[in-house]
Amino acid sequence: MSAINIGICGLGTVGYGSYCVLRSNSLELARRVGCEVRVSHVGSRRLRPGQDIGETRFSTDVFAVVDDPQVDILLELIGGTGIAKEVVLKAIANGKHVVTANKALIAEYGNEIFAAAAARNVMVAYEAAVAGGIPIIKAIREGLAGNSIQWLAGIINGTGNFILTEMREKSRPFADVLKEAQALGYAEADPTFDVEGIDAAHKLTILSSIAFGIPLQFSKTYTEGISGITQEDIRYADELGYRIKHLGISRRTKNGIELRVHPTLIDENSILANVNGVMNAVMVNGDAVGSTLYYGAGAGAAPTASAVVADIIDVARMISSPESSVPALAFQDDSLSDVPILAMGDVESAYYLRIAAQDKAGVLSDITEILGDCEINIEAIIQKEPRGHDASNQRVPVIILTHEIREAVMNEAISRMEKLEAVEGHITRIRVFRLDS
Amino acid sequence: MSAINIGICGLGTVGYGSYCVLRSNSLELARRVGCEVRVSHVGSRRLRPGQDIGETRFSTDVFAVVDDPQVDILLELIGGTGIAKEVVLKAIANGKHVVTANKALIAEYGNEIFAAAAARNVMVAYEAAVAGGIPIIKAIREGLAGNSIQWLAGIINGTGNFILTEMREKSRPFADVLKEAQALGYAEADPTFDVEGIDAAHKLTILSSIAFGIPLQFSKTYTEGISGITQEDIRYADELGYRIKHLGISRRTKNGIELRVHPTLIDENSILANVNGVMNAVMVNGDAVGSTLYYGAGAGAAPTASAVVADIIDVARMISSPESSVPALAFQDDSLSDVPILAMGDVESAYYLRIAAQDKAGVLSDITEILGDCEINIEAIIQKEPRGHDASNQRVPVIILTHEIREAVMNEAISRMEKLEAVEGHITRIRVFRLDS
Repeated sequence: MSAINIGICGLGTVGYGSYCVLRSNSLELARRVGCEVRVSHVGSRRLRPGQDIGETRFSTDVFAVVDDPQVDILLELIGGTGIAKEVVLKAIANGKHVVTANKALIAEYGNEIFAAAAARNVMVAYEAAVAGGIPIIKAIREGLAGNSIQWLAGIINGTGNFILTEMREKSRPFADVLKEAQALGYAEADPTFDVEGIDAAHKLTILSSIAFGIPLQFSKTYTEGISGITQEDIRYADELGYRIKHLGISRRTKNGIELRVHPTLIDENSILANVNGVMNAVMVNGDAVGSTLYYGAGAGAAPTASAVVADIIDVARMISSPESSVPALAFQDDSLSDVPILAMGDVESAYYLRIAAQDKAGVLSDITEILGDCEINIEAIIQKEPRGHDASNQRVPVIILTHEIREAVMNEAISRMEKLEAVEGHITRIRVFRLDS
Repeated sequence: MSAINIGICGLGTVGYGSYCVLRSNSLELARRVGCEVRVSHVGSRRLRPGQDIGETRFSTDVFAVVDDPQVDILLELIGGTGIAKEVVLKAIANGKHVVTANKALIAEYGNEIFAAAAARNVMVAYEAAVAGGIPIIKAIREGLAGNSIQWLAGIINGTGNFILTEMREKSRPFADVLKEAQALGYAEADPTFDVEGIDAAHKLTILSSIAFGIPLQFSKTYTEGISGITQEDIRYADELGYRIKHLGISRRTKNGIELRVHPTLIDENSILANVNGVMNAVMVNGDAVGSTLYYGAGAGAAPTASAVVADIIDVARMISSPESSVPALAFQDDSLSDVPILAMGDVESAYYLRIAAQDKAGVLSDITEILGDCEINIEAIIQKEPRGHDASNQRVPVIILTHEIREAVMNEAISRMEKLEAVEGHITRIRVFRLDS
């Protein structure tokens, strides 16, 4: 097979985001799949300002993409349960594989859609429908497949989590934060879907089905929103050692399965309680593995596109080489890269330094002069009065936090500082890693 | 295909754990794979006290399992790089698929093993080799496949994380906590592999390869342990807003790839900094998805077995129906379950109640009498003096945290309490979820 052709229906935020990721990571995609994966046809009412799809074929009628015989995999990124449903069912009828990010469509019509796909022997992949870029569908459906899942509990609506986080951290009322979320584009003009838990209920319905192997049952999901949460309740929860989070919970009990979305108090020390702002996280408890947690961005163009493209790769691998498994090291054996491993001296890092210095004039200026000489910038410094047994021998620890610098340079600076008469013994050096880098 | 036969080599903690999970979840496995998956042959020098493998064929020579023509998938759970390597290469030569939990073997000999497997067209799966039950191999290799991975940073040795957590939370010295970790069975008699970072380096080598598509290069991994970390450094890090964690870090830079294990300062507000005790977590940053995190138990019989069995299911699906993808709802279409969804009244939960009560004698006893009458147990109660505008109208909020009770009973109790003359307006009721349940 020389190339796999992708058709995109819907060129909104997620549609264009997926187009861009497919284009920018096309070489890595080919290394993973073993053949070229290209967008051959895009259907959308119009191109928005700033959207550039080069020479890619464009139709204003999405059904022109659905009926395009060249298209192998159709991306449904229209949203909603109207045209999107028609597009998906027609694509399946046309024998095309489908990738969708549409939680409402899967939660409400998934049983019908999967039956149609099974009858035509095509795949319908929907990783992007739940928790954006977090590969939670794959984790539960495959990664935890050895378990009998006991329960799952997730923060699966970023808008709601942003509101609750701001309410707690800044003591602001619900209505006030909601307005800000709308201004920031996190919440829709009509926030009902997010704030009243309908969006979360769509996602929970899907997670529950794959966790317990039950049909999709959106209509049976209990849903309660966060608009009634007050500062008073947040403060009392804090006092009791809890955080209030808007959770989707599904649990296996001897009498049946719980399926519920509502504000919930959880232990403030749990890792789930420390998921803040617009981030999503799902905790899944299996009988063998215990509790595992999956955390990341639950919305946004690029994170959602990440999940869409992962699904495309899964489907493309099945099309191009159904008898082969995923390559052992993720990329095709003949596509491994010979990028060198950096020697430690060439690694750039920020550093924490602890220097045992004698308490005399000029020590600090000697130290900072060496650092300045090596072009090492200081981010923070702590120097305290000597006390305890240090006081008797007049030693003061000097703590320095530096900006990023090549390790060889830092080693040279440390070696020079250790030669200073007023510096005693070895300097403690611990690297700092910026998780937001 | 009527059944897929598993051969197990090595019946230690993980080997017997995997045997037990395969046995206890055998019905769910068949629902997922579409045919029976059974252990047909176990090889181990001996059965330990308490191990029961029923009528399963047993050999004291592991190569009897390797050469058993009935075995489709061989589990190598011996460990180390001696006999384990021979077993794996011989099994591949015999045309068997292999599942292994052996990080040292994959990190040090993976290139040779995967080449042999590719030549024989068999699979070698190794999810259990990194971070125990967390499906991190699948997440990076498939779930994030749409991304160009930028970096990953992981707490991938539970012993080291336990030691650093105890040192910080209880102000204990390194040597003291190490002794406790040994007594608890977290650390080996010779703790070098864990505390000097060799175990973490094995795992990081594997993660780095699948993240960046490079050959396994264990010998080029920089490794620095935690035995030099002092209370002083932990306290100064705290003061600067950081935690010290033993991290494996691999990062793509323009000059090459960083591959390093060492103590590291990270922002105390990051979710990775809040991973404590023996738990593992890996943060992965992709160009599309941003940062995602995967958290869970990194060791232990059942968590590791969870990963082993997930690999078995992946391989078994490829054997039994290579043309079919993973079922849409995780289980085979004809195997969905009709377990009912519980009505909300039948859900059992703990509750947070906020009651606006008049500040007069007897109110609290009226409330607790109703709760007692409904057999609702109280876990905590907060009642404070009235203040501010509440003081003028003599209202006091009463906050009650209850134990688990059926929601219908709680609704009845709330309805009765709201009828009390001294209770004003509606009672606020928020559910509590125990994440350790």
